[in-house]
Amino acid sequence: MKESHCDVLIIGAGPAGLMAGNALSRAGVNVRIIDKRPNKVMAGQADGISPRTIEMLQSYGMADRLLEEGVQVHMLAFYNPRRDGKGVERTSRITDVNAPTARWQFEIALHQGAIESIFLEAMTKHGLEVERPYFPTALEISQDEAVLKDPNSYPVKVGSNTVLQADRPEDTEIINAKFVIGGDGAHSWVRKQMDIKMEGERTQHVWGVVDLVPETDFPDVRHRTLIHSDAGSCMIIPREGDEVRLYIQLAEGLEQGAEGRLDRSKVGPEKVMAIAKEAVKPWKLEFPNPITWWTVYVIGQMVASRFSAHERVFIAGDACHTHSPKAGQGMNASLNDTHNLSWKIAHVLRGWADLDILRTYEFERKKFAHDLINFDKKLASMFSEKAMSEDNLNGVVPEEFQNLLKSMGGLTSGISIEYAPSLITDNTYQSFAPGLMIGQRVQPQIIIRVADCRAYEMQDLIVSDTKWKLLFFVGDPKQSKRAAVVKRLGEYMQGPASFLSKFSPKSNREAAFTMLIVSSTPKDDADYTDVHPGLLTHWSKAFTDDVSVDRKSGGHAYETYGVLKAAGAFAAVRPDGYVGYVGSLEGVVDGTVDKYFSRFMKEQP
Amino acid sequence: MKESHCDVLIIGAGPAGLMAGNALSRAGVNVRIIDKRPNKVMAGQADGISPRTIEMLQSYGMADRLLEEGVQVHMLAFYNPRRDGKGVERTSRITDVNAPTARWQFEIALHQGAIESIFLEAMTKHGLEVERPYFPTALEISQDEAVLKDPNSYPVKVGSNTVLQADRPEDTEIINAKFVIGGDGAHSWVRKQMDIKMEGERTQHVWGVVDLVPETDFPDVRHRTLIHSDAGSCMIIPREGDEVRLYIQLAEGLEQGAEGRLDRSKVGPEKVMAIAKEAVKPWKLEFPNPITWWTVYVIGQMVASRFSAHERVFIAGDACHTHSPKAGQGMNASLNDTHNLSWKIAHVLRGWADLDILRTYEFERKKFAHDLINFDKKLASMFSEKAMSEDNLNGVVPEEFQNLLKSMGGLTSGISIEYAPSLITDNTYQSFAPGLMIGQRVQPQIIIRVADCRAYEMQDLIVSDTKWKLLFFVGDPKQSKRAAVVKRLGEYMQGPASFLSKFSPKSNREAAFTMLIVSSTPKDDADYTDVHPGLLTHWSKAFTDDVSVDRKSGGHAYETYGVLKAAGAFAAVRPDGYVGYVGSLEGVVDGTVDKYFSRFMKEQP
Repeated sequence: MKESHCDVLIIGAGPAGLMAGNALSRAGVNVRIIDKRPNKVMAGQADGISPRTIEMLQSYGMADRLLEEGVQVHMLAFYNPRRDGKGVERTSRITDVNAPTARWQFEIALHQGAIESIFLEAMTKHGLEVERPYFPTALEISQDEAVLKDPNSYPVKVGSNTVLQADRPEDTEIINAKFVIGGDGAHSWVRKQMDIKMEGERTQHVWGVVDLVPETDFPDVRHRTLIHSDAGSCMIIPREGDEVRLYIQLAEGLEQGAEGRLDRSKVGPEKVMAIAKEAVKPWKLEFPNPITWWTVYVIGQMVASRFSAHERVFIAGDACHTHSPKAGQGMNASLNDTHNLSWKIAHVLRGWADLDILRTYEFERKKFAHDLINFDKKLASMFSEKAMSEDNLNGVVPEEFQNLLKSMGGLTSGISIEYAPSLITDNTYQSFAPGLMIGQRVQPQIIIRVADCRAYEMQDLIVSDTKWKLLFFVGDPKQSKRAAVVKRLGEYMQGPASFLSKFSPKSNREAAFTMLIVSSTPKDDADYTDVHPGLLTHWSKAFTDDVSVDRKSGGHAYETYGVLKAAGAFAAVRPDGYVGYVGSLEGVVDGTVDKYFSRFMKEQP
Repeated sequence: MKESHCDVLIIGAGPAGLMAGNALSRAGVNVRIIDKRPNKVMAGQADGISPRTIEMLQSYGMADRLLEEGVQVHMLAFYNPRRDGKGVERTSRITDVNAPTARWQFEIALHQGAIESIFLEAMTKHGLEVERPYFPTALEISQDEAVLKDPNSYPVKVGSNTVLQADRPEDTEIINAKFVIGGDGAHSWVRKQMDIKMEGERTQHVWGVVDLVPETDFPDVRHRTLIHSDAGSCMIIPREGDEVRLYIQLAEGLEQGAEGRLDRSKVGPEKVMAIAKEAVKPWKLEFPNPITWWTVYVIGQMVASRFSAHERVFIAGDACHTHSPKAGQGMNASLNDTHNLSWKIAHVLRGWADLDILRTYEFERKKFAHDLINFDKKLASMFSEKAMSEDNLNGVVPEEFQNLLKSMGGLTSGISIEYAPSLITDNTYQSFAPGLMIGQRVQPQIIIRVADCRAYEMQDLIVSDTKWKLLFFVGDPKQSKRAAVVKRLGEYMQGPASFLSKFSPKSNREAAFTMLIVSSTPKDDADYTDVHPGLLTHWSKAFTDDVSVDRKSGGHAYETYGVLKAAGAFAAVRPDGYVGYVGSLEGVVDGTVDKYFSRFMKEQP
């Protein structure tokens, strides 16, 4: 029997697992990823990428290909029955994204296989490949408190094999891991091993999905379209090329066995296509081309009772939450789960932070999962019901349905996700920068690099490189008063007592931190040499608040983030791009910021 | 002795040759490219990419890597002697690009090797590799008029060999080509074979160039900086990473032999560095790091008397024009030479157009070369002279030098290049769209794709795919009057008598043309189904004039191009992105446009 060691073992190479694999391998962590499927997903499955997920993928340098290959969904069209009974009519078109600060004001539709291959390509660059087919066969976690509390221990043992039922033990590998991430889907094997229960309920909703290239004169076939028709409800989502995806709620097929499994003989793509064809009348919808992909399934609206066992085995993605496809949230939630988790594991493995920070994973992501499912319940029930009519006065009022979607724009776009105060998120001094909302991601803002007047998106400076971004809003250092403050900050940060020096290894003062300066000097007057070298470690890190040279973007950064130019502000942005701390510049030198980092960071020898 | 045939043989794999190689291989032309250098350029040499060149490369899908790898030069700083004699001071900073309609308001600095490798990578995708080392040894062109007038003949014979002096004829290959492009540099072998003379003069200006990473507190080291100092004139250009390029005009080293060759023993990088160090005082400029690349050279300001022999052998790039490096034009002129030439050769080879269109290459590019050299003379003399001072009242006035650079912004950016009326450029009806300037490139404008409300840059629709772009500005087809016009246009274009049908092979009505519709219906009301299918061959080709969904761009397209919504307009954009024809929509159906294309396009069987 082979026995091996790795720091992190990821089980399952779906979106959650690949996200973790990419983030951890990029960070140089000793990580493996196994999957029982012999091949990657080729078509179909989850396909919606929300605006926040685009921002997040951009922070890994992965948005370009997504934006190039994906379909952009800008508008959402609503269709309801005509009063004369002759089919449906468009009642409104609204923007598909309703989150004013989103950097990308659209969703992307792209099949899961294409998204996974973006990750696989990135991972390969970092030297990580998915091992497949590879089956986990047993999972044991140490019950010894001392072992569990030692960040260098390997408390998890995973038996695994290249064939499902290994007759011969010599084919089995025992992998000893410091951490295990189960991204193995709605029927998660890892979850079962850890005896974690799903809480919530299986619904009675059966959904059918078909991807194909239709022949149609329906004018909104390239927008996301929600149709309430007398024939049933239908959602259209544009896909790559001329393809579209049709979602239909089906009335039949649910044979309520012990497992609530579908009777697939009763529901097939023909049913979906037949209902869709009726639903879009009086427009034509024909299907001369073959189906690319289809499925039917019952929706469960459930959240796992726990997201981890002893913060050594974690579950993520569908393994800890399932919901309907209508809001297009599945893959987004999965990707953001492990985006949240990965930097924390990297911090612990490097000895930068205490094991305690790992508790914030469940704390932060479970609340989000519950919010999502609450919304999903409302949406699913309103979408399933028929529209209000003469015969059905209690039916769905079109405006109410539209308003629900609009009002939940912050949640469905991912933009307003806010992590509550915790060990790593301190909202004591929000008022120094009310526009840098503590617990939320940093909103987009163009600032100008002083040395070369090049315009930069602030979000592009907050890359997912496992480092904290320390933002110093210093005002105008051409003014002598502000210059004195900058000098004092520089001398402090340079000194041996600063948190930068304390929590960084001697060999690299910026190992865990990147300092970025945002001044308010007009770019025509500004010089990068105005910033004290203790604060400015390279010319490329001095920025100022001004419009870009082409005048098309930028300006008002201090207003966006709510910083007073005469006072300045300091912010610590977590490595996942969420604001962890906001406070005064004074707090940098007087120990307040030091106290914040001391809660979870470990002093370096 | 081997003998072979190819449609186009390119001699020289510098910028001009690679541009042609990429454009022609992308177009599916049977093309070869040979170079006598055993390896590609690795560092240094030409490095400036102008705004128009970025636009042009974008039309080939090649700007992304350039924008990612290159340094952006946004500002131009001027330094002049202080009145107190203690070194220089900054007298002004202006925008580096002074061309308001440029899509990218900056220049890119990137070493020639990196730029060449972008081309090499693109060419490889199209199946073309540079054959190197490969020496042309003889070039013969048929004198038989009948042969020269037959587009299918191979009137050019090129002897070539993998070693310079072939002792054994069995190593020689005779390449029979329909066309030859000589992109073989300032000392062009092809030019000499064709007995083409360079006209103009060798100057007395000796320039030294050094690339290195300096240690400095000079605040404008990341901007393009022009320094007139008592120690001499110096230009600083920021380069990749922390590197900078120093250009210095040297007083010595010019031993005026028969060839005007430099005495390299008298001029070296130390001289350049010593002058630069003096020129930036009172700032510090030290050189603790090794030199990456350096050169010294004498400037020639010359243009070839002819750019082709019988429109069968062409010369391009440095082979037909040389000038000073100060305006950063060398590589830009070279790339745009063969961009201009390639589609014309492709048209002739496919039998779409007459051989006559090839004459427009010299007609268009020679005038540009002369304009460039006239500017270069002014610039070089002003930059060489000392600044005005107590002792030198006739010296250069700083404001005049700055104004010269500003006023020539259209030329140096490449944005205002205008090709005069010719066989392929007809300015009879400019007034239907004064903003689509005939002979100039189409200026940037965001328009909205009707079917999915996605914002598109008009320039991105005018891709360099050797097709003509037919722009139909139809107004609002939701209005019955405009709808009737659209229907009439659709029926005409669909019919057998239209120029589309006449100049396209039966198998592909859009082989040489792409029709793009720009309506003026507000996007919330617009449906792509409003456009007659005779005009709209795919949903993706209907656009409208409106702001983008995120309201950050777009709108006023009709104003930008000067089109009246009630009248509409038609434009034919040449495959290189330059406007060839503008006129009324009426002119489409009444034969006026047909007459324009009939001047040079050949009716297809």
